[in-house]
Amino acid sequence: MLEFSDMATDRASVIPALENIAAQLRIDSARSTTQAGSGHPTSCFSMADIMAALFFAEMRFDPKDPHNPDADRFILSKGHAAPILYAAWAAAGAFDRSRLLTLRELGSDLEGHPTPRLPFVDVATGSLGQGICAAIGSALNARRISSDYRTYVLLGDGESAEGSVWEAANIGGRDGLDNLCGITDVNRLGQSQHTMWEHDMGQFERRWKAFGWHAIVIDGHDMSAILAALDEARRTKGMPTMILARTEKGKGVSFVEGKDNWHGKALKKDELEKAVAELERQIDTSVVVDAPAMITKPDTRRRAAVAPRPVPPPAYKIGDQVATREAFGDVLAKLASTDPRIVVLDADVKNSTFTDRFEKVAPDRFYENFIAEQVMVGAAMGLAARGAIPFSATFACFLSRAADFIRMAAIGGNNVKLAGTHAGISIGEDGPSQMALEDLAMCRAEPDFTVLYPCDGVSAERLVALAAEVKGPTYLRLSRPKTPVIYPNDEAFTVGGLKVLRQSSQDVATVVAAGVTVFEALKAHDQLKAAGTAIRVIDLYSLAPVDRTGLVAAARVTKGCVISVEDHYAAGGVGDAVAEAIADAGFGVHRLAVREIPRSGKPEELLDRFGISAAHIIKAVTSLVGAPAAR
Amino acid sequence: MLEFSDMATDRASVIPALENIAAQLRIDSARSTTQAGSGHPTSCFSMADIMAALFFAEMRFDPKDPHNPDADRFILSKGHAAPILYAAWAAAGAFDRSRLLTLRELGSDLEGHPTPRLPFVDVATGSLGQGICAAIGSALNARRISSDYRTYVLLGDGESAEGSVWEAANIGGRDGLDNLCGITDVNRLGQSQHTMWEHDMGQFERRWKAFGWHAIVIDGHDMSAILAALDEARRTKGMPTMILARTEKGKGVSFVEGKDNWHGKALKKDELEKAVAELERQIDTSVVVDAPAMITKPDTRRRAAVAPRPVPPPAYKIGDQVATREAFGDVLAKLASTDPRIVVLDADVKNSTFTDRFEKVAPDRFYENFIAEQVMVGAAMGLAARGAIPFSATFACFLSRAADFIRMAAIGGNNVKLAGTHAGISIGEDGPSQMALEDLAMCRAEPDFTVLYPCDGVSAERLVALAAEVKGPTYLRLSRPKTPVIYPNDEAFTVGGLKVLRQSSQDVATVVAAGVTVFEALKAHDQLKAAGTAIRVIDLYSLAPVDRTGLVAAARVTKGCVISVEDHYAAGGVGDAVAEAIADAGFGVHRLAVREIPRSGKPEELLDRFGISAAHIIKAVTSLVGAPAAR
Repeated sequence: MLEFSDMATDRASVIPALENIAAQLRIDSARSTTQAGSGHPTSCFSMADIMAALFFAEMRFDPKDPHNPDADRFILSKGHAAPILYAAWAAAGAFDRSRLLTLRELGSDLEGHPTPRLPFVDVATGSLGQGICAAIGSALNARRISSDYRTYVLLGDGESAEGSVWEAANIGGRDGLDNLCGITDVNRLGQSQHTMWEHDMGQFERRWKAFGWHAIVIDGHDMSAILAALDEARRTKGMPTMILARTEKGKGVSFVEGKDNWHGKALKKDELEKAVAELERQIDTSVVVDAPAMITKPDTRRRAAVAPRPVPPPAYKIGDQVATREAFGDVLAKLASTDPRIVVLDADVKNSTFTDRFEKVAPDRFYENFIAEQVMVGAAMGLAARGAIPFSATFACFLSRAADFIRMAAIGGNNVKLAGTHAGISIGEDGPSQMALEDLAMCRAEPDFTVLYPCDGVSAERLVALAAEVKGPTYLRLSRPKTPVIYPNDEAFTVGGLKVLRQSSQDVATVVAAGVTVFEALKAHDQLKAAGTAIRVIDLYSLAPVDRTGLVAAARVTKGCVISVEDHYAAGGVGDAVAEAIADAGFGVHRLAVREIPRSGKPEELLDRFGISAAHIIKAVTSLVGAPAAR
Repeated sequence: MLEFSDMATDRASVIPALENIAAQLRIDSARSTTQAGSGHPTSCFSMADIMAALFFAEMRFDPKDPHNPDADRFILSKGHAAPILYAAWAAAGAFDRSRLLTLRELGSDLEGHPTPRLPFVDVATGSLGQGICAAIGSALNARRISSDYRTYVLLGDGESAEGSVWEAANIGGRDGLDNLCGITDVNRLGQSQHTMWEHDMGQFERRWKAFGWHAIVIDGHDMSAILAALDEARRTKGMPTMILARTEKGKGVSFVEGKDNWHGKALKKDELEKAVAELERQIDTSVVVDAPAMITKPDTRRRAAVAPRPVPPPAYKIGDQVATREAFGDVLAKLASTDPRIVVLDADVKNSTFTDRFEKVAPDRFYENFIAEQVMVGAAMGLAARGAIPFSATFACFLSRAADFIRMAAIGGNNVKLAGTHAGISIGEDGPSQMALEDLAMCRAEPDFTVLYPCDGVSAERLVALAAEVKGPTYLRLSRPKTPVIYPNDEAFTVGGLKVLRQSSQDVATVVAAGVTVFEALKAHDQLKAAGTAIRVIDLYSLAPVDRTGLVAAARVTKGCVISVEDHYAAGGVGDAVAEAIADAGFGVHRLAVREIPRSGKPEELLDRFGISAAHIIKAVTSLVGAPAAR
């Protein structure tokens, strides 16, 4: 490993080469955006010097092996500057520079904003304020795997207005993440006008210091200052560093530099020629640059392969009263010892979500974010990108605080596990602000999202364990009330499955329920049966993917009479999932769901008041198929 | 109006009465939560002294006329302390104290967390970090209507970890909102453990000062200090004030005061008796308290009634190429002069959403939030609560950043207007991070949300004007590409309507489209017609409410062959809306929608690649009804 004391000297000698690289990165960014006919060249120009320093004098990585677990990470939080990210990796030798000209073409992975389709991108960025949250997770992961890799994250000044940035700032400061270095490219100009603080660097410095970070203000075009700041950041112990780099948007090209109204505009062909000529004049041709050779490779450390052991099965008795959220906490505690990749993130509700049971057995893999759901999910995305399997848990309604992160996790195919407890009106007295009734809509909308919704302790334990196994973003919907265990401990569940809980050859209707409404459906079944009407009851514990075949089969047997019942609003939930699954077979669904803003009250009162109790199921069956006497 | 210089003396004399009131508020909070069997008494106890000072020595309001436009506002950001809010209004004489014992009962408006069902609640709270955003809007509204009312907002210390708090802090500081006073109840204990900064008051002070606020640290149980701080806040000019009150959770009741594990727990009956006895001993019975008489009423000022004038009609020619987002900007500019209640909030994309056209004509009613969508929506909620009609506009995908605010706006029936531009894959090259494909799912899920989606310039202008008229939360989905004007300028649109664009007696299928897919459906119609197949084309511009009758009629005519096509993911959007509307009539829908994570590319390439182009519509029609030759 390099001796840090020698580095300042070593690095000074490479400044001319870095300056040449920076000019070339600007040229490449200009060319690719002009070729694409769109993009953000001026946002690239402001950060070119920083990129040259980071990639070719600071970071330890292997362009041919970007996933190396000990390689330093770079997250481009200002994702619209993607062209210079791609240019830097091309300059590093990760791929041929000619590919840069496929920017933004359909079929090219060099998209308008970076996604993990590219092996050197950890998380999709492009929605501002998210990269720094992921960087927190990446830095936490280094601690988890005992690696000395460092995480660098580059932010725009405009995005510093996002609240999520300050959630991350709190966590970074609280945890003393000295393996994390942020750089804010303070180029003064946002999309539509100057930023809030323009070039008043004190505004940035005050805030970061107040949030517990080491803050360094520099001229972001002074290569020597950039290198010195990166050195200082690396030497700073006990707190993360934020380098605040005063830059000019459009730097290096006189007719765009520091000018407004150039955000997100590619240069026209003739402008490009002028720009390239100007930038080429900034290259010192007497300095020979072998950029790939300048990169410091990471130490390759041996690590034992992770071999997760089987999760001990549930140990309930049929009829035991247990809340699915409690079973969730219990199985997380089991997972703590069977799989070292499992980590848990909380937002100050661990005693309600029962993740405190994981904390108790694995405190070093438990991350308390206090009441800050964006960084709770964003940090999980960074952890997942580096091989952890993170469960972020809070009340389901508060996951909506991180809806944009969830969207980006879906875009990146990120392996994050979200658990939302206290779903639906069945929470009772706390009232609508604490009731998630649109969480299924949020998660089901995203393609390739797994959505699971257990109704009892056994299915909860089994589905949580499945969630840890399945790749990609996963949502677990969990309930507050205790419900009776209905499945034997050895019952098998699959992603994309369902359970037919009651059936007979006389079934006149199929009732599809999930979570707490399973028990309403079972009650309805028993009461209808006593009155001579047989219904089929399905527990649709997997909402995405959904078992089309199983649903269509039930619909067919019950002659198209299908009723869904859910503790969720009418749009986007169980009813819609069933409806789409059976639509092409020619069947429709009669939906029982919450159809107005609910209120405080006792859970059982609310189920009835808002139309999803056993009585409403019976009424729906009766009105659709007729009372027994009438048949 | 009171002379401020005399107030300090006046107020000192009322301290014993205020202390008695505080003790009574604690008693009332304890009683009501014990009666309910749940709730947060200890979170009420910590802020009782502050509440007594605010309501009975500081704020100017009329308990019998809480909506008075010049009354000071109080927003309880830590909504879980609702019992003491209700107790304060009861003590003020707004309703009989006996009603407090209906807390959390089904049918009582004294819900677990406050909602505007109560006339003295401006916005629903209970999801933390939102009240201060609404308070920003309330303070901005005072400027808008030239009122000297002040806005007070009470936050918990735990909720200060929410990023939205710091978005609000930025805006409050930037705008120098000296008519805004925050109070943070630093009671050290969160739900599951101590808060991030416990009683380290400097952590709070540093942050608020860095964000441009006047910060005052006090002992939150010292009535004299509370009154002095409120005085100081009122005298502070050019910046908002944050009073940081060091308090004890559970204050006043020895066996809960400062103790962990008492969050969100009502006292048991015997505990209540002990607590009340202890609190009653804190009441100085020699001091006669007439709480309602202590309240300062607001000045009643005369204001001309607002009489909005008709909006000038659109002025396009059929076939003009105009983006719906541009028409949105143009009609907003018209609304600026026809209705003084219209205000616009931006998040640094005004040159893309075209709200800069409103800013140009009404700069004093245009609020730039920079890249901070939570405060953009939260402040709009506060403005709406005080009579403004706010339009918050950004790229539709970034509205998901405010999903939890949108949920709370729905709960509160708040009159906020959200406009999401650049919806769908039709934005093209920027790629998935900039494409909203779940925004309809987000807004349609909420009951009583109006969701409108124009396809051309005329419908855009008409629907924006309708959005301003309709009460309650409203979402406008707008597109990036220019589309041809298809409606005459005098075409009438209604909330809950649709347009049948093509029909004949030979129609074999109904294609329901909206926004950009309307033009794909029209293309498909023309090509199919040339090949001898007639289809019905519907522009479903109103997605919530939806025209069930119109859709069922079309489905019936085309014998149940209904195809939906949308620039949105398959769940929660146009297809699901149509499916639910026609389900009970026995019809199903074949859905064309985006079914995987999209990528960068040209808009027309993407429509085809992801299955929602004219070619895909033709294919669907042909496969469902057979090619003409086959019939």
